[in-house]
Amino acid sequence: MPGKLTDLETPCLILDEERMMRNITRLRTRLDALGVPLRPHLKTAKSVEVAKYMLNEVNNFATVSTIKEAEVFAEAGIKDIIYAVGIAPHKLPRIAALRQKGVDIAVILDNMEQAIAVTQFAKNSGDRIPVLIEIDCDGHRSGIAADDAETLIAIGRLITAGGAELRGVLTHAGKSYLSRNKAELEMYAEQERAGAVKAAGILRGAGLPCRVVSVGSSPTAHFAKNLDGVTEVRAGVFVFFDLVMAGIGVCDVDDIALSVLATVIGHQKDKGWILVDAGWMAMSRDRGTAKQAIDMGYGLVCDVNGKPYTDIIVTDANQEHGIIAVRPDSNAALPHLEVGSLVRILPNHACATGAQHDHYNVINKQQHIAAKWPRFSGW
Amino acid sequence: MPGKLTDLETPCLILDEERMMRNITRLRTRLDALGVPLRPHLKTAKSVEVAKYMLNEVNNFATVSTIKEAEVFAEAGIKDIIYAVGIAPHKLPRIAALRQKGVDIAVILDNMEQAIAVTQFAKNSGDRIPVLIEIDCDGHRSGIAADDAETLIAIGRLITAGGAELRGVLTHAGKSYLSRNKAELEMYAEQERAGAVKAAGILRGAGLPCRVVSVGSSPTAHFAKNLDGVTEVRAGVFVFFDLVMAGIGVCDVDDIALSVLATVIGHQKDKGWILVDAGWMAMSRDRGTAKQAIDMGYGLVCDVNGKPYTDIIVTDANQEHGIIAVRPDSNAALPHLEVGSLVRILPNHACATGAQHDHYNVINKQQHIAAKWPRFSGW
Repeated sequence: MPGKLTDLETPCLILDEERMMRNITRLRTRLDALGVPLRPHLKTAKSVEVAKYMLNEVNNFATVSTIKEAEVFAEAGIKDIIYAVGIAPHKLPRIAALRQKGVDIAVILDNMEQAIAVTQFAKNSGDRIPVLIEIDCDGHRSGIAADDAETLIAIGRLITAGGAELRGVLTHAGKSYLSRNKAELEMYAEQERAGAVKAAGILRGAGLPCRVVSVGSSPTAHFAKNLDGVTEVRAGVFVFFDLVMAGIGVCDVDDIALSVLATVIGHQKDKGWILVDAGWMAMSRDRGTAKQAIDMGYGLVCDVNGKPYTDIIVTDANQEHGIIAVRPDSNAALPHLEVGSLVRILPNHACATGAQHDHYNVINKQQHIAAKWPRFSGW
Repeated sequence: MPGKLTDLETPCLILDEERMMRNITRLRTRLDALGVPLRPHLKTAKSVEVAKYMLNEVNNFATVSTIKEAEVFAEAGIKDIIYAVGIAPHKLPRIAALRQKGVDIAVILDNMEQAIAVTQFAKNSGDRIPVLIEIDCDGHRSGIAADDAETLIAIGRLITAGGAELRGVLTHAGKSYLSRNKAELEMYAEQERAGAVKAAGILRGAGLPCRVVSVGSSPTAHFAKNLDGVTEVRAGVFVFFDLVMAGIGVCDVDDIALSVLATVIGHQKDKGWILVDAGWMAMSRDRGTAKQAIDMGYGLVCDVNGKPYTDIIVTDANQEHGIIAVRPDSNAALPHLEVGSLVRILPNHACATGAQHDHYNVINKQQHIAAKWPRFSGW
């Protein structure tokens, strides 16, 4: 295993273990004080090794975004899982196969067609598949409106009568990613909590069970002031953080644990460009900061030790080329970087950048490579 | 192996073999008429099986964007390769290792620092590494200006005197992707040809060798009227085509050979949304049509047989969720698609969407699955 960053092939993914640990500890401490356990979302890291740090013996439960994640993490010993994307009927056999191996995996749904499919499958198989009803707390994506009592109760009754297990409700404040300040973050957090608790109350008021009230997103998890009525908080990207999270004030730039190591391959001096061997294949096409106050292009450029250069970003990217330049509207100076120099690029979106790579080069406090952790992809 | 699309797990990648063959034949026929061979770029497909269709016994040469591509395709029998990203000095040992296995792999460069690194490596190893000087024909990225005789000759002389092989020049009309009509496509093609030929003339005029004059991009390869002085044309994305290529008029939508199969998981009826299980993880974050006359969101939605619905696109995407809706400004009707229905989504950018998957489900004319072809990733 290479010991130094200079021994690595570029481009590649660097994971700062100390920052990751700090991020995990910070959120755990915060949620401990609020008295609610964390159910980490493992879709960001897709790594058994990272999952070991995110979970522990007491809180050995997780959230996933694909059934493949559920299968890999179940194999690694995680036996309490929520598959947090609305269930497609033809995926139920893979859910059932996991349950037959002793994995307590729950599905989510937000419509009668899914509820019929799940209850028919439950009846035919004799497996009381646990179901969380997905609640829409902010109109960003899927889910039933938190105050749509008619639909909630109809689906709840069908699940219960149909032989599946109605375990609770789940919501995700996807719009919190658009926050611009602390007040908005706190507002989205309270909206998320209130929506889930309201829906739970509707179900319970109709005599239906609702043991789980699951909420969460990295922004709201860090800004909720009150989690009354919530039984668990989900969050994923916080483990690495990224420029989008820094842009909305959930973390600082020096909390970002993930970066892409790249090599300078040339210059266009009259244009003020430095060319590197990390293009969108290494960074992903994510441009999540484009809508924020400060557009970071395809990423913020740091020296090889991870210290950001002032206002130096990847302004454009082709498949295997990145163009580094001073951020428009900045008067910063372009650093002198010879051909062959290494830089590290902080990503807009850790989930997307991570997915472009098949392993993490894990570095310790001394910037030495301590481990190589595989990550997986696919469905 | 599954026989029907309905047997597949979703999301997954579908490759229409007939369309792919038609795309390959079309460009080959065109270039045959112009008397210039095609050196296919294999970065789009990253598949040994697809490469077999793109190359043949007569024209068994290729372009790659990573050394890993070179290694995989060399193993599969392709022995004449250009690594078409400016060489980073520390990558030379992997180039040399390929050359020791009998692979005629050439590197490209555009500055003295790279030329010094290559010649020093050549001297130390005794391997006359073949070099193409990269020419900048349109200011889009890397390369030496085609009329910068001083730099061209200085680098050419250093390569030749330093013990490497000056094989020629290479350019890529990256700006042709921004074309809006046939006239612009033809202009970029001529600009690309003229730039490469001019630089070659400068080198030859100084008594330097320049056997290869390599040009190409999928747009210019399809619109060049004259390739005088050019020895080979490179193109990659044409093998699958995509919405960006259709948007600039290089292909029709029904030439697009690549799509993502997805399952409907729900609706938000008041918003006119259909939710599917293909988000940006399956489609990529590429938004290449955003700058075009018609913004296709994250992709154009087709029925399960690949027939596009009028103006139905993926308007937004989260990691594993796609939101399907009528394209803004269109009066088209949203199709009725029950939960569990399958759709196919044409991608903005075939290179980026392909890279999110580890295999192709290859379908024949009858829409049956004829093969499963692996694809690779990484560096």
